[in-house]
Amino acid sequence: MSESTMKTINVEYAIIGAGTSGLGAYSKISRKTDSLVMIQDGPYGTTCARVGCMPSKLLITASDYAHHLTTSDFFGVTSEGHVDGRKVLERLRRERDQRFVANNLRYVNKIPPHHKLEGHARFIGPGHLRVGESVEVKAEKIILACGSRPAVSKVFEPVMDRVLTSDTVFELEDLPSSIAVIGMGVIALELGQALHRLGVKTTVYGRSGKINALTHPDMQQEALDILGSELDIYPSGQVVSTWEDAEGAWIEFEQSNGQRVTKVFDRILVATGRISNVDQLGMEHTGAEFTEAGKVIFDPQTMLCSDYPIFIAGDAAEYLPVWHEAFDEGRIAADNALNYPDPVPVDRRPPLMVFFTDPQIAIIGQSFRELEGLEIVIGELPFSSPRHVVWNKVEGRIQVYLDARTGVILGAELLGYQAEHLAHLLALAITHSMTAEQVLMMPVYHPSAEELLRDVLIDAREKRRVYAAETMIHSNSVPAYS
Amino acid sequence: MSESTMKTINVEYAIIGAGTSGLGAYSKISRKTDSLVMIQDGPYGTTCARVGCMPSKLLITASDYAHHLTTSDFFGVTSEGHVDGRKVLERLRRERDQRFVANNLRYVNKIPPHHKLEGHARFIGPGHLRVGESVEVKAEKIILACGSRPAVSKVFEPVMDRVLTSDTVFELEDLPSSIAVIGMGVIALELGQALHRLGVKTTVYGRSGKINALTHPDMQQEALDILGSELDIYPSGQVVSTWEDAEGAWIEFEQSNGQRVTKVFDRILVATGRISNVDQLGMEHTGAEFTEAGKVIFDPQTMLCSDYPIFIAGDAAEYLPVWHEAFDEGRIAADNALNYPDPVPVDRRPPLMVFFTDPQIAIIGQSFRELEGLEIVIGELPFSSPRHVVWNKVEGRIQVYLDARTGVILGAELLGYQAEHLAHLLALAITHSMTAEQVLMMPVYHPSAEELLRDVLIDAREKRRVYAAETMIHSNSVPAYS
Repeated sequence: MSESTMKTINVEYAIIGAGTSGLGAYSKISRKTDSLVMIQDGPYGTTCARVGCMPSKLLITASDYAHHLTTSDFFGVTSEGHVDGRKVLERLRRERDQRFVANNLRYVNKIPPHHKLEGHARFIGPGHLRVGESVEVKAEKIILACGSRPAVSKVFEPVMDRVLTSDTVFELEDLPSSIAVIGMGVIALELGQALHRLGVKTTVYGRSGKINALTHPDMQQEALDILGSELDIYPSGQVVSTWEDAEGAWIEFEQSNGQRVTKVFDRILVATGRISNVDQLGMEHTGAEFTEAGKVIFDPQTMLCSDYPIFIAGDAAEYLPVWHEAFDEGRIAADNALNYPDPVPVDRRPPLMVFFTDPQIAIIGQSFRELEGLEIVIGELPFSSPRHVVWNKVEGRIQVYLDARTGVILGAELLGYQAEHLAHLLALAITHSMTAEQVLMMPVYHPSAEELLRDVLIDAREKRRVYAAETMIHSNSVPAYS
Repeated sequence: MSESTMKTINVEYAIIGAGTSGLGAYSKISRKTDSLVMIQDGPYGTTCARVGCMPSKLLITASDYAHHLTTSDFFGVTSEGHVDGRKVLERLRRERDQRFVANNLRYVNKIPPHHKLEGHARFIGPGHLRVGESVEVKAEKIILACGSRPAVSKVFEPVMDRVLTSDTVFELEDLPSSIAVIGMGVIALELGQALHRLGVKTTVYGRSGKINALTHPDMQQEALDILGSELDIYPSGQVVSTWEDAEGAWIEFEQSNGQRVTKVFDRILVATGRISNVDQLGMEHTGAEFTEAGKVIFDPQTMLCSDYPIFIAGDAAEYLPVWHEAFDEGRIAADNALNYPDPVPVDRRPPLMVFFTDPQIAIIGQSFRELEGLEIVIGELPFSSPRHVVWNKVEGRIQVYLDARTGVILGAELLGYQAEHLAHLLALAITHSMTAEQVLMMPVYHPSAEELLRDVLIDAREKRRVYAAETMIHSNSVPAYS
């Protein structure tokens, strides 16, 4: 194509990506100026709606119903049934497309056409983008909201025909007969357990031996024990080779103890994390600075990349790749693009992560790993409040970390049924630096899951008393002549 | 029996009743003095464990599993099954007795025998009780923690053989074939819906036409519409006569429009509320003061009855008859008995009530009825967050009441799936007089039920803005010459 057919668009703001963070940025900037363009590569619809939060939760809800069939006898309700994989997936796609994706597209469709540009964007110079083959965009300020893609190791190349990622698994016509799940992060464990409960013969292959959302060793071990009692898990090691034959895709896995196991699967779900699409933008042409690992350096309180008028947001930033953070980051990036060159640092919310496994995994605020060695006390209880007993869901544990001096709640790690709600309650407390005593002033209904939170805070309060007494004893034991 | 065989016990403290509030009071007082006695009429074990919170939630869990069988097809999971009524009730009693009642009895068994006295207590003079026929107790300070009993109208006398209350329903060998539920309070709706879902042909008879836990007319109506779409409900009227024949117990009900309906049932569950057992204590011998309705007058911040050294706690007080309030009241009464004659008023927690129906009903803080006419704005949304859509549970509504001037959250009424958790989050906010803005600073995970709370607070914030603008216009419109 000759230069003469190249169209150049000059705008104040360019947003690369129309996902959660890009749209968040767009909603802020479009209220202030018409001089902006949002560039989308591929179909509209967010990662959350298309391949992330929503389809995974739709699958989990179906798997809950399948699981009820195996647990209802305990309550005096005899039941049997079967999972119709095609119906499960059809309903998942129907609800995903007609509700969540459609909602998103309705919003996108309201955006004026001159604000939208389709094609793959890459930098050809600072503030200078090429989009597709025939359009160039010159923008004073650019927001990178280009999202992420699943990482797939080269070891799976021989079996790519049978490899799925979260981008493709929800497009299956029917459930596979068997599946290998590679990874022990949120996507791996949520989908692995859901598929297992829907009748798919499932094996999970981990790497580190740990469920890393949790950072306290006891919590990691308990999570592994509970999930391992239901699922076939090889928690530590690596896939050393794969091949395909008429039986399916073979995986040779070397465990950390050196033992190798070789199994064959109908499908392989690679869920070993997502990587930012920023590497596909030609960032080397911008003058931005990079970490040794090749990641763009940015300030999470302004989302500004170095001193350049480039901002980053959402999964592209690989900072806290969850929806509410992506939404926040899009807006922080937009505010600071609007304020440039005077960015206003924003206090980020306390980190909150939930795994929608059964039992759930949730972490809020500072983790045990971050607090280890500091003056903290740990309130700790098994997940067995009267309400959990009634539900027959008494697996797991809650840990709440208090500042030993002030009693302020710093963080918590949770493993248990409906842990998400206790995590949100703690999130409000942590956001406002509340003490355990302050939370204990609230009413707590009986029987409710929240009683567990009350009881673990009472436990932490007792431990603080012991800690205070011991610290006092220590002070008193200083020799009188000192 | 002659006076000579009468044994008299002189103590500083007497507690009448060994339920939740009585034991709460006992735990406080017994740490300070050995001069106390706790008098129990009938078997030990709290209302909560034996006939209240725990057995009702055990029944509801079984009914949830029965309900899953009718709702799983939507998710692609075909299921069928049947409810084994005997097994449902056996499991309920087994868990109730072996866990909740047993836990309570273990605690009671550790109490020294000289602190326990069994028999019916009634006053024969101020500070002077007779217990059974052969014991008298003279106590300086007395705590009335004698609980409550189900109220049963005389209209049911002809069919008493088939009448159940919450005291007796859990003792059934098998589920009845049909049941009339009298009342629309928490016990009526929780048990009525659970029995219906377990396959019992159920009809609910209300009185006022309203579900009175909710006070906003729209919320009352919506609750009635939703529950009425599943259950056979006659919401307003009264039972005018009953009789029994070979077919069962007949109920003639006159609706508020004058129409009479007559139906026959296997059983009748009278759930029209509980009345305090204080009327069985001979309070007229104490000099205590009474309301016109014959209820003992007391201060809810000290639980002191008039100026007499008599305190009241728990269901006996008929103030907020739920477990956490009973527990609090037992301890407030004990603290103030210990401090007598210098009672220390305690700030009560914000009121919190949950109906474990589906959808749930929850109220927290000040109700719409209490706030009506004051300067408030109402954040309001249907119960249809993305998470609720995923669950296919989109019925109901949430209302949050903000002080229009300050933005402080004053109260909320909720009708929706898992409303209890949002009510607890609001409970923490209301306990600390937080504004909507302050709650909106917390992280909220996607997708979670808590997103609904975020969105309704955003709605309330917008309405506050409109209110502020309108109030401003109003101020500006004051004529210049005024």
